[in-house]
Amino acid sequence: MSAYDDSAPGLSRRRFLGAASSLAVAAGVIGTGGAAAAESLAKPHAAARTMSGVEPFYGVHQGGIVTAQQTHSLFAALDLEATARADVIALLKRWTVAANRLSRGETAQPLAVPKDAAPLDGGSAEGLRPARLTVTFGFGPGLFISDGKDRYGLASRRPDALVDLPKFNGDQLVAEKCGGDLSIQVCADDPQVAFHALRELLALADGVASIKWMQSGFASPPAAGGTGRNLMGFKDGTNNPATHSSDAMNKVVWAGDEGGWMKEGSYVVVRRIRIALEHWDKTELGFQEEVVGRDKANGAPLGKTHEFDPLDLNAEDKDGNPVIPANAHARLSSAAENDGAQILRRAYSYNDGVGFYAERWPPWRQGIMLDAGLFFVAYQRDPRTGFIKINKKLATEDIMNQFTTHVGSAIFACPPGVSEGSFIGATLFEGLAG
Amino acid sequence: MSAYDDSAPGLSRRRFLGAASSLAVAAGVIGTGGAAAAESLAKPHAAARTMSGVEPFYGVHQGGIVTAQQTHSLFAALDLEATARADVIALLKRWTVAANRLSRGETAQPLAVPKDAAPLDGGSAEGLRPARLTVTFGFGPGLFISDGKDRYGLASRRPDALVDLPKFNGDQLVAEKCGGDLSIQVCADDPQVAFHALRELLALADGVASIKWMQSGFASPPAAGGTGRNLMGFKDGTNNPATHSSDAMNKVVWAGDEGGWMKEGSYVVVRRIRIALEHWDKTELGFQEEVVGRDKANGAPLGKTHEFDPLDLNAEDKDGNPVIPANAHARLSSAAENDGAQILRRAYSYNDGVGFYAERWPPWRQGIMLDAGLFFVAYQRDPRTGFIKINKKLATEDIMNQFTTHVGSAIFACPPGVSEGSFIGATLFEGLAG
Ligand code: HEM
Ligand code: HEM
Repeated sequence: MSAYDDSAPGLSRRRFLGAASSLAVAAGVIGTGGAAAAESLAKPHAAARTMSGVEPFYGVHQGGIVTAQQTHSLFAALDLEATARADVIALLKRWTVAANRLSRGETAQPLAVPKDAAPLDGGSAEGLRPARLTVTFGFGPGLFISDGKDRYGLASRRPDALVDLPKFNGDQLVAEKCGGDLSIQVCADDPQVAFHALRELLALADGVASIKWMQSGFASPPAAGGTGRNLMGFKDGTNNPATHSSDAMNKVVWAGDEGGWMKEGSYVVVRRIRIALEHWDKTELGFQEEVVGRDKANGAPLGKTHEFDPLDLNAEDKDGNPVIPANAHARLSSAAENDGAQILRRAYSYNDGVGFYAERWPPWRQGIMLDAGLFFVAYQRDPRTGFIKINKKLATEDIMNQFTTHVGSAIFACPPGVSEGSFIGATLFEGLAG
Repeated sequence: MSAYDDSAPGLSRRRFLGAASSLAVAAGVIGTGGAAAAESLAKPHAAARTMSGVEPFYGVHQGGIVTAQQTHSLFAALDLEATARADVIALLKRWTVAANRLSRGETAQPLAVPKDAAPLDGGSAEGLRPARLTVTFGFGPGLFISDGKDRYGLASRRPDALVDLPKFNGDQLVAEKCGGDLSIQVCADDPQVAFHALRELLALADGVASIKWMQSGFASPPAAGGTGRNLMGFKDGTNNPATHSSDAMNKVVWAGDEGGWMKEGSYVVVRRIRIALEHWDKTELGFQEEVVGRDKANGAPLGKTHEFDPLDLNAEDKDGNPVIPANAHARLSSAAENDGAQILRRAYSYNDGVGFYAERWPPWRQGIMLDAGLFFVAYQRDPRTGFIKINKKLATEDIMNQFTTHVGSAIFACPPGVSEGSFIGATLFEGLAG
């Protein structure tokens, strides 16, 4: 112990962040020391941050999927290092408790920390709002089988729908931005709250799993409400299935009885898609709209007037050309062109500045310096009839490919939601020994 | 012209973003075509985005320096490619007009764009608020002299205070994150507004200057107001000079008569400082506080009770040890220990995920994966008696160095503010031919 903690009168047994919470001070738990105070601090002290904007962590489904999109997202993929299934389960239990606390604006763990121990929460979100934080966990193929090895005795439980993604035409995937055994997506209306949560969750994984890659993203809602725009300047999300309709979500997003332990869960596919912004910005407006198949200003399908007018895929102009071109993105990705396939998109724009792997780009793109684009996030009941189905077509035919490059890719099974007392992914382990 | 623009009735001569602005529609300027409409669209249409939160661009000083800190920052450094001074001046003129428009929530350039031309603004901030956007321009040493060459006949105007930064003890600078001939810092309360502005300004530099590196950052204000926290979990900014005091700013930040054409400008030093968060998080609370010299919970100097209590650098404990350790950051960076040297800090936290240059870290840090830390931004009247003076001491003595690594570095002269009709940096070119 140094001269600067317990020797100074009044500083003895003070607890960081206990002391920082003015409401905790008001409640008189500070400076009293002893077991009672420690216990009191160990309870969720809902007062640590303002309680406005709390998204419930516990529920039938995980948060962050049909939750109204927050402004900031951090998506992290982790590699498992654990050798025993029990260690994975213990991690999931720690994460469950911490994620619930974090979503309530509390510290990751209860705090009763003397000066001579490391704080159980780094404190970087102290004083900030809960900011509608959600944490969405996912299980990658590597949890079930990794290099042919069944590390945790879970191979037989791998969902059929959790396939390895095929190679798509034009993919320029960078290994260090792909895959992962586990995923954590943190979304919040505050970037510091999001980063704090991710960091605390990573710390809790110490020795069990470690971060492989991370992607940050942003999505800014228009002042007047309505659909936000992506970095191409187009409204993005118009033709998403309705998240408020449980019928639509049960059909498109949530696994049903076929899912077994995944019932009420969902499968997420993420793609880090670079957009050649400098190239795009030099493209004429009319062509941009042909690429997307929609009006840039108001988002209406070509040939229509309002954003939410249905696409008329059969309409022709006076010369007999389709009004929505044959290779337009909105046409090729539509359910009508994909045997009814649908996904729920929840993408974020990203801007990572000057691309560090610029040297890997094709020669004609060497002059294009910004590594920015869309971190595409799609939820679905079954990727085989969702993302994979749609992207097979897009990868070969979509004129938008002229401006986009898929550089990162991953798939995860996001287990159902948790009820208090249980833990994330519990259904996966039901009936297994250990 | 394609079948999808001028052939469809009512779509002819529509202007993107003109059409998107509902107020412009209300004013009846859409669809009327002709010179009058084009002219009307060419005027700043202040209605394009909600006018709340506009920071003035024109003024005695540039914005973004003493402006109350916004939540998001993008700092870009550019390399000049122009061969003629006139091209640099023309760029600065374009930037001035665009930065003023962007700060008002308008598009970068007036819009009168037919479907068969590229839009003059990408549209990715359409519908978003001005978000207190500020644009702060800077001139790096390379504008005056580059590889010994006086490219633009400006060498004699290089301010004495715009020195090349010396190498500091412990620097682990990465060339691709250092230097630059010009700088643009965009700050805003919305990351998409900030990125939109930067991108449009970069586009205006096409052929004259191109981006060398970019750093994004965030700073989240506490719900209850007061000083925000950095990623070490400590309140950061407590002992900054008072930005509301013009006396303090004239003394610390703004160049005076000695500055010549830089009068009312300021010098910025930026340092991309990685923090070994995983290491820090495992450090005991008492030691963390000794490192900083302040209480983690409330920010009070060690030995004091309130955040804004002055540091008592002479106080000793009962054993005769200084209460604020000899190698504590707050002691070593204080004016008292640096012959009165002061700077205005306006730093942002950054999180770039998994570090791509991890392989360059010292062996004992190989396990530390997150590339996150502080993008340190300091303004001062003269870096020789500001940042350089202070950092010489910090670089050798600061115990915080155990957790921090300076990987990026740059210095820029930020010229005085502009009045309407003039352009950024005009005083630099006064009296020069051409
Ligand atoms: C950088 C990449 C991409 C951009 C910028 C982009 C942009 C857009 C835009 C502007 C729309 C029209 C508005 C809307 O309905 O949301 C749209 C629609 C859509 N996109 Fe994408 N997209 C991208 C990649 C993808 C990928 C990889 C997929 C799936 C494999 C996809 C699937 C869809 C679907 C399903 C629709 C709705 C189509 C409909 O039913 O009308 N997009 N996208
Ligand atoms: C990751 C790097 C750094 C971190 C996390 C950090 C953090 C802090 C903290 C927590 C304080 C105390 C609160 C306050 O007065 O704002 C502080 C004070 C200060 N820091 Fe830093 N700092 C960093 C780097 C630097 C550098 C590179 C410099 C200048 C070369 C600097 C200059 C100062 C100054 C001048 C003060 C005020 C000292 C006083 O007068 O009390 N800091 N810093």
